Amino acid sequence: MLVSTIDLNSDVGESFGNYKLGMDEDVIPLISSANIACGYHAGDPAVMRQTVTLARTHGVALGAHPGYPDLVGFGRRNMGLTLEEIKDLVAVQIGALQAVAALQGARLQHVKPHGALYTMAVKNPGIWDAVAEVLAGLDDRLILFVLAGGDRHELESIAQRRGIRIAFEFFADRAYNPDGSLVSRKLAGAVIHDNDVVAAKVLKFVKEGRVNAIDGSDIALKAETICVHGDNPKALALVKKIRETLNAAGVAVKPPAEFL
Amino acid sequence: MLVSTIDLNSDVGESFGNYKLGMDEDVIPLISSANIACGYHAGDPAVMRQTVTLARTHGVALGAHPGYPDLVGFGRRNMGLTLEEIKDLVAVQIGALQAVAALQGARLQHVKPHGALYTMAVKNPGIWDAVAEVLAGLDDRLILFVLAGGDRHELESIAQRRGIRIAFEFFADRAYNPDGSLVSRKLAGAVIHDNDVVAAKVLKFVKEGRVNAIDGSDIALKAETICVHGDNPKALALVKKIRETLNAAGVAVKPPAEFL
Amino acid sequence: MLVSTIDLNSDVGESFGNYKLGMDEDVIPLISSANIACGYHAGDPAVMRQTVTLARTHGVALGAHPGYPDLVGFGRRNMGLTLEEIKDLVAVQIGALQAVAALQGARLQHVKPHGALYTMAVKNPGIWDAVAEVLAGLDDRLILFVLAGGDRHELESIAQRRGIRIAFEFFADRAYNPDGSLVSRKLAGAVIHDNDVVAAKVLKFVKEGRVNAIDGSDIALKAETICVHGDNPKALALVKKIRETLNAAGVAVKPPAEFL
Amino acid sequence: MLVSTIDLNSDVGESFGNYKLGMDEDVIPLISSANIACGYHAGDPAVMRQTVTLARTHGVALGAHPGYPDLVGFGRRNMGLTLEEIKDLVAVQIGALQAVAALQGARLQHVKPHGALYTMAVKNPGIWDAVAEVLAGLDDRLILFVLAGGDRHELESIAQRRGIRIAFEFFADRAYNPDGSLVSRKLAGAVIHDNDVVAAKVLKFVKEGRVNAIDGSDIALKAETICVHGDNPKALALVKKIRETLNAAGVAVKPPAEFL
Repeated sequence: MLVSTIDLNSDVGESFGNYKLGMDEDVIPLISSANIACGYHAGDPAVMRQTVTLARTHGVALGAHPGYPDLVGFGRRNMGLTLEEIKDLVAVQIGALQAVAALQGARLQHVKPHGALYTMAVKNPGIWDAVAEVLAGLDDRLILFVLAGGDRHELESIAQRRGIRIAFEFFADRAYNPDGSLVSRKLAGAVIHDNDVVAAKVLKFVKEGRVNAIDGSDIALKAETICVHGDNPKALALVKKIRETLNAAGVAVKPPAEFL
Repeated sequence: MLVSTIDLNSDVGESFGNYKLGMDEDVIPLISSANIACGYHAGDPAVMRQTVTLARTHGVALGAHPGYPDLVGFGRRNMGLTLEEIKDLVAVQIGALQAVAALQGARLQHVKPHGALYTMAVKNPGIWDAVAEVLAGLDDRLILFVLAGGDRHELESIAQRRGIRIAFEFFADRAYNPDGSLVSRKLAGAVIHDNDVVAAKVLKFVKEGRVNAIDGSDIALKAETICVHGDNPKALALVKKIRETLNAAGVAVKPPAEFL
Repeated sequence: MLVSTIDLNSDVGESFGNYKLGMDEDVIPLISSANIACGYHAGDPAVMRQTVTLARTHGVALGAHPGYPDLVGFGRRNMGLTLEEIKDLVAVQIGALQAVAALQGARLQHVKPHGALYTMAVKNPGIWDAVAEVLAGLDDRLILFVLAGGDRHELESIAQRRGIRIAFEFFADRAYNPDGSLVSRKLAGAVIHDNDVVAAKVLKFVKEGRVNAIDGSDIALKAETICVHGDNPKALALVKKIRETLNAAGVAVKPPAEFL
Repeated sequence: MLVSTIDLNSDVGESFGNYKLGMDEDVIPLISSANIACGYHAGDPAVMRQTVTLARTHGVALGAHPGYPDLVGFGRRNMGLTLEEIKDLVAVQIGALQAVAALQGARLQHVKPHGALYTMAVKNPGIWDAVAEVLAGLDDRLILFVLAGGDRHELESIAQRRGIRIAFEFFADRAYNPDGSLVSRKLAGAVIHDNDVVAAKVLKFVKEGRVNAIDGSDIALKAETICVHGDNPKALALVKKIRETLNAAGVAVKPPAEFL
């Protein structure tokens, strides 16, 4: 195996008040890093606390999953925020979760921007830089999760300059363009629905560090974490399959703080 | 003077988005402790940042001013929250402000609950205890601001058990009942509108440690911080008058972290 | 049968953005009146539209289900609102749903206050009166759903004075006190979980106009609508059972506008 | 005078809870049409009621001023909403204000989209069409306020097809491009701060139906309403000056429902 250790991360803690979202109890035992919503696009203070407890019970590393202040849009609509607005929003969201974790004697491992904030950052590295600046200011042990496949050098430069670590993220159930970017969700074939195909992609990735692009070409991809989902039973079955695939291949699943 | 050093605290950072509230630029230079709204009953991430900057510029100690999640009601309506809900809400609000402060290389001195949360705590010490528990869990250097005049021993026991410090607060512009509690705002005379009378009350308090109650009786009051307001020009004039009164009496105005 | 026609009402349209709540597609075909959330305690503009469409597809009468402005608390926490605040909140919520209905060529049949607003109204008839005033001002054909079992005469007086109709509501799955009030949810036995028992209660009610109270006594109860739920498969099974019971007994299920 | 009657409209009712915004008491007596915020980007149910009362006291026509659901951004940030989302949002906001007006025995005259919703509509006439569709569905007497200076024919076609009326709006304090569009606020000179210059523009407009563009050219402009502001004393002084200018020129100030 080219890759001997990998992280599995999933968005969790997305329930809100009376609204339950996601199968956190089922997916958390299967992952190594939990991206916990911080109350702006999803989550509320009680859900944040319960999710931290759940993750800690299973030895899963804690991460903040900050998003746009758009609950009804679930943080998926671009809001045209300035970098300053983004830094403010990311800071208060991380801080809120840091406090929740601190009350349980824990601290955060990582930060993964959510939804439109993530996709805008992919288009505009100035956003990655702004978020990295916040992480460095709050706790330089925090690892920033960024999209693998793009200009790795640019993101590494940002991390180095800001003095933080980054973990590149592989989306096993998404199709890639030949340039390493994700195929837009608006296009057919953007999301791979066949769990066997996804598992095969994961295996190829850990074996060869490569992924088949949507045009059939074969591209190199370096990543330390794989994004999985726990929204529904089928997604959950995929996470199990990925873990089995990794186990069978002798790849350890660990939070990136342990191997970065 | 019986009291040689006292703190002046004021609620600030209550603006929200396009809405400006309070004369923070004017009142902050006059106080020693700033109670900064944390985005639930008032304030937003940008206002939090700007207010921390403003307070630091003037050497004013930073405090979190957590409140109920009721922006339209400004945190002044009781919401019948459980102690668990209160702890969660207080934790995320303090954490958010801690992060904002950390990005400016600062940390919080104190926490003062806002509005209905404060008045409910006065009626139910279990709320003070719940808030104290959160402070102890987050940073045991945090000082909790509580109402002077009530059962001082009970609050001191809570603080001692939780391992935090408390500062008792004197409301110079409010009338007191003979038992040391505040006269309800629903009753006539609850708020003293004559700045000269308020200044005289402050002077009597620092000289004798006593305050005239609404029935004319004279009661003992021990406090380390005086609550002032910066909502309007008249309130601001009162703060200036109080400072002059204190200066003339040789009483130093300092944040409680320096003398508690 | 003493009762030849009855309404079945259920709270629907409680989803919000990415959050799905309730099995509206399943329960709406089984009821005759839909209480649709209006965006304050639950629901959003898109959900309101979709729910109106769904209800109309099945010939179910439309009702507004206004609640407190407390999304995270789902409108279940008392907020100590004034009557004026309640009237304002009820007006804008009904108006919003009236507009959504109007765009589909429909109008509202009824209004049923939600959660803490409903339970506070049961304790304070001034709230029923305030809501009735709003209904009369907006559309005096609107029927107000109120709790059966209490002082029927007082509520009828309010309705008559305001010039609107009321429909008394029977909670088939809740235990009653001998005075006709509901047993508090805080007490054991408040909610009846055995569907057969609930069906038997419904049958007794339509046959005799009576219900067994929690102390075993038998009390008279007059009601025009039965509250059912569509939150989960078990609740849904109960609605089916109630309909079958009513069908077997020859009781017609119709919206109250058709028989009041 | 080419123009014998004109409307003056202003955004009002933008206060929220404890936050006061705008000098509504002063500006409302000076205008003929009030654009009232509907609780999403600004305003709350109580403010809506009070503003309707105030407008009616002064015989000012009522209009809904719907905006994006972004209170902290005051509806000024584009949120990339779909046309369906826009229609839903506009419907519930108009409906809410219709109810508030109905309770005072009044109805709405017009609708003017707010902030980013307005500027996006200027760029994408599909939004004007979507809003027009909602107006037609709710009350085809409602007049839609649109930006003058653009493709008048296109907007008139939309109005005709939807069966509603439109009023073209002239921004007296904004600079125009030679093509009749507004100079972007990001450019110098976009807003005219000299009240005398603005008054002269108004006079030229009513006399000749023309306006000087930013490049010195002279362009034709047809409009039935002039947008004014009541945010601050200077804005208020401008409204007074405009009214005096119109009075002196013999131009009547009336709501468009009276002359369209």
